[in-house]
Parts: sequence; C-alpha cells; structure tokens
Amino acid sequence: MALGGNAFTREHESGGYDEMAANARVMAEAVDGVRQAGWRVVVVHGNGPQVGNSAIQQDAGEPVVPRQPLWALGSMTEGLLGSLFCLALREVGGERGLDVVSLVTHVRVDPADPAFRLPTKPIGPFFSAQAADELARQKGWQVVEDAGRGHRRVVPSPAPLEIVEARAIIRLLEQGHIVVAAGGGGIPVAANNGRLVGVEAVIDKDLAAALLGATVGAQVLVLVTDVDAVMLDFGTPRQRPLTTVSADEMRMHLRDGQLPEGSMGPKVRACLQFLDAGGGCAVITRPRLAPRVLSGHAAAGTRIVSRLADRGAA
Amino acid sequence: MALGGNAFTREHESGGYDEMAANARVMAEAVDGVRQAGWRVVVVHGNGPQVGNSAIQQDAGEPVVPRQPLWALGSMTEGLLGSLFCLALREVGGERGLDVVSLVTHVRVDPADPAFRLPTKPIGPFFSAQAADELARQKGWQVVEDAGRGHRRVVPSPAPLEIVEARAIIRLLEQGHIVVAAGGGGIPVAANNGRLVGVEAVIDKDLAAALLGATVGAQVLVLVTDVDAVMLDFGTPRQRPLTTVSADEMRMHLRDGQLPEGSMGPKVRACLQFLDAGGGCAVITRPRLAPRVLSGHAAAGTRIVSRLADRGAA
Repeated sequence: MALGGNAFTREHESGGYDEMAANARVMAEAVDGVRQAGWRVVVVHGNGPQVGNSAIQQDAGEPVVPRQPLWALGSMTEGLLGSLFCLALREVGGERGLDVVSLVTHVRVDPADPAFRLPTKPIGPFFSAQAADELARQKGWQVVEDAGRGHRRVVPSPAPLEIVEARAIIRLLEQGHIVVAAGGGGIPVAANNGRLVGVEAVIDKDLAAALLGATVGAQVLVLVTDVDAVMLDFGTPRQRPLTTVSADEMRMHLRDGQLPEGSMGPKVRACLQFLDAGGGCAVITRPRLAPRVLSGHAAAGTRIVSRLADRGAA
Repeated sequence: MALGGNAFTREHESGGYDEMAANARVMAEAVDGVRQAGWRVVVVHGNGPQVGNSAIQQDAGEPVVPRQPLWALGSMTEGLLGSLFCLALREVGGERGLDVVSLVTHVRVDPADPAFRLPTKPIGPFFSAQAADELARQKGWQVVEDAGRGHRRVVPSPAPLEIVEARAIIRLLEQGHIVVAAGGGGIPVAANNGRLVGVEAVIDKDLAAALLGATVGAQVLVLVTDVDAVMLDFGTPRQRPLTTVSADEMRMHLRDGQLPEGSMGPKVRACLQFLDAGGGCAVITRPRLAPRVLSGHAAAGTRIVSRLADRGAA
C-alpha cells in the first residue's frame, strides 16, 4: 500500500507534528482495515512536504550547523514518518496488538539515469517567479512553474531498480509484521567503486511501491490517494469512474491522454509496472474505500487487472 | 554493541555528512570484526551531537516551518544515522555482502519517572552563561554548566523499560542480519490511555543497549568508546587499566568513587544492569580492540563478568 504525498501533511497545512499524527491515523485505519480483511501489508509513504520542510530548516540553520545532502534528508523523513505511522497503527490496532515496524530503506538507482539531467520532481514550498530565479542562481537549484500555483525547486527522480533491504522486509512480512519501508520512495543510492553511495534525488514513491510489491511477491498494489477512483473524461459532463479494467484498456486510456501527467498518469504507470512484473491486481482509491475495493466488493474504486478474465478475482 | 556519542561526530567537528560517514566506517570495521569472529550483532548508536544540531535547525526554520518535538528529532536521527551506518557496514563488508538493516525503534519509559522532574542529559551546543540564561527564559529550557566547557541545554533522561520493536529485532538477528536499533537510545514513548505517545526526553543509549541486549538474550554487551579500558586511579601515578573483573568488584569501584559520573560511571552501571538481567559478560573498550577483547584474547580492554569463575569464558 502506497500512501499519497498528502498522507501526513495536506495542502495548506504547515506540517506540525499533531497535524501529521492526526492524518496518519486516517491512513492507519485504512491499512488496519486491509489487514483485518486477512492481508499481509507492506506500507510505502510519500515525503514531499516533509523533505521540503526539512530542506528549509537545513538552509536556515547554516552556517551554525552544516546542511545535510538531499538523500540524508530523505533518511530523516523515513525516521520521522516511519515512527509517526507506527505509533498511529499501534493506536488503531489497540488491544489487538499489531506488530508493526518501520525500516530505514535504501533503493538503488542507475547513476546514468537520464532523470539526473532532467530534474522533474517538485519538492518544498512555492515561490514567486522572482524569488525562484534568485534561489536558482544562489543555490544552483533547478526551478519550474508548478500547475499555476507558483514556482518550485525540482530534483531528479530516477527509476528505482532494487530495494536494498528486500530480504529483511520479506522476513518480517513472513513473521506477520506490518512493515513500513521505502518511505519517501526510499533513500536513493548508486553503486560507485563497489560501494553504495547516496545520490541527490527523490524517487517517486508509487514507482518504489510497485518495485517493492514485485520484489516481495505481493498479489496486489494499492495506491491510496484522495479520490474514489480514476475518472475518464475528467471535468466534463461525460465524467465517469473506472471500476475494474484490464491493463491493456488502461494503456489505451493513457495513450488517449485520459490520465493527466500531473495526477493520475504516473500512478497508473506505476500500477502497470507492477502488473508487468507479475502482480495480480492494482487498486487506486481513497483510504476509506481501500479494504472493500481490494476485496472486489466496492461499487467505487479502480481495480486494474492483468487480463479481463481476472475481473472477478480478488 | 553500543557506539559512543562521538561515533559519528567527534568533538570539534561540525557534523557534516562526509565527516559522519568517515567516522562511521571506523565503527563499521569494529562491528564487522566482531561479526567475522562469529558473533551475531545488534548495534545501538548515540545521537547527542546530531539531535542537538537538528534542534538548532528546527529553531532557525521557524516561523516558516513548524518545529518538531524532541522525540521526533530523535526519530529523524535514527533515519539519518541508521542509513549512514548501514551504508558504512555494507562498504566494509564489500563482496561478503553483509545483510544489515536499521529499524526505527521506540522505547517505552514511565511517564512518572523522576527524571522528568530533574533533567540531566545535555544536548546540543555549548553557550556562554549569559546566552544560556537568555535561552532558558525564552524557550523554557533547563540549562546546566557542563564540565567547565560552557552551558548546555539539559533534557530528561528516563530509564528505558521496554524495546517496543523487540520481536522484529529478534527475528532479523535469527535470520543472520546485523541489526541497527534503538539509535539515540530509541524514540521515547509512554503509555497514555492505551496508546503510545512520544515524550520530551532523550534516553541514555548505553542503558537502552543494556535493555536491548537483555531483551534479545545477548551473551555480551560491548560499549565502544574512546579509551582502551576502564582505569583505576585515573590521572594519578597509580593509574592502571581494569582487564577482567567481576560485577561485585566493579560495584566496589563504583562505591569507592573510582568511576566518575561524567564518564565511566554511567557506562559501568549500564554493564551491571545487563549482567543483573542475565547477560554473561560486558566489555568496555575502543573500536579497534573490540573484536579481540570480546574473545578474551586482548591484553587491553575491560571485561566485566558475573562471577570470577567466568574470567576465562568468552
């Protein structure tokens, strides 16, 4: 289950601890619902707002305290949000005593990934065009205009190739733990003279979740977001939700431009990667609906299956 | 194995990433040496300098970004240092391919622990008496004079009672992983209306390591520090190292004031707690000597055993 970027800090929220903890409980209830339906669960969460906040604090603390590199900020958000989400899950589980554990997770990328030459992942706050220009000059940032909401720093977002701690994750799942892993898409590392070193990037958490799902042999990938389902003809009078759909149909909708790059496109592509790697089913829906969509018993929610013959399978 | 507070950032260093990574490699070699001698290893690291740095960055980032509470900073250092140390161990292990994983770990404390009324744990940088007074007024800090080096903020350091993620740690050790856990003493939490909530404290990492060792059934507790051995009559012409010594002898040296509260006293008490809880042997030495002291084959290094009859046992 991949929890959306706003899972802990919603738009217009500042990112205070109590806010994040309250949001985490909503997500924890969704995960617990899936768990109670009999599934073993590994959870991947986003970290966009938090890694951006952390970068601001790092800048503000200089020159008293040295700034950490971007991948180190990723590792800090894995600790912060991993702890927060484990506590929320334990609270939701109450006397049932859920065994839940969060792993500091590294994800290998290719240092020659073209993404390093073309940063696309926005992080941190919005700036005016002028402030953004100034920051770009001062700090060597790349900045882009983001969906009419202002200018933001963008960083490379290379493809995830390997979950470094995969064996530990599999062992803990086998032992009945709910495992939180690859938070924020995982700490990006690349091989360099036979060792793994951090690289300045933020991996897409949905792609990391698709890879993690395939690696642990998951039957289902669930991308939890803030809409009931993927919509066709979004924003027109013909708008309608996709319920159960084959991977081939979904590829057609992608080609037809039905799934915008700023929202559903990347999520659907992560689902297709998971199915291509042998996954049985991918779900896109909101937290509350996740347990029922997963079991195939909900009217709403999008389920993508490898073949149409699988429409009825859980 | 508990790695000293200066394991990643030595005195007079600023806490930059490359510095921390270089220091981590020295520690990783010690852990790898113990591992190669045939031991299963769980590693606890300190976080004093890093959590202090993080607090400064959090303050500097306000009011743009809200400050996180102290236990959340602890969770961030678990991510940061857990990642850093895992990468260092993988590098040192090279082609032997060590399986190493870092867990976000919570440690339960008693909210009625008297430590909450009497903060003793110094964190963060040194201030002049005047600046410290000012900060105490502004932020409600408690400050103390620290060993003639200036004034520092002190926070409560309650006794660790339970390693929340103990089961996961045990499973991973059984599967042959080197496990990094309870970093910085663990994220302090207390039961509150049937749920676990973070509390404003920093747990002593040696005491957390003693508890963790007892919980996982460790045979030996190793406290890695920056001296060869515990000294008697330290700083006098009669100064001499303690090699193998019984718990009862060590209690006598504690009572005789041989082990100052600012340095060896708390370490030795953590060792005695481990032995009282059923541990076989506790070692205090520097990284380089750890593998040999542990096997009983070093001339230097201090080994504390339950009974004198155990002197010869590994």
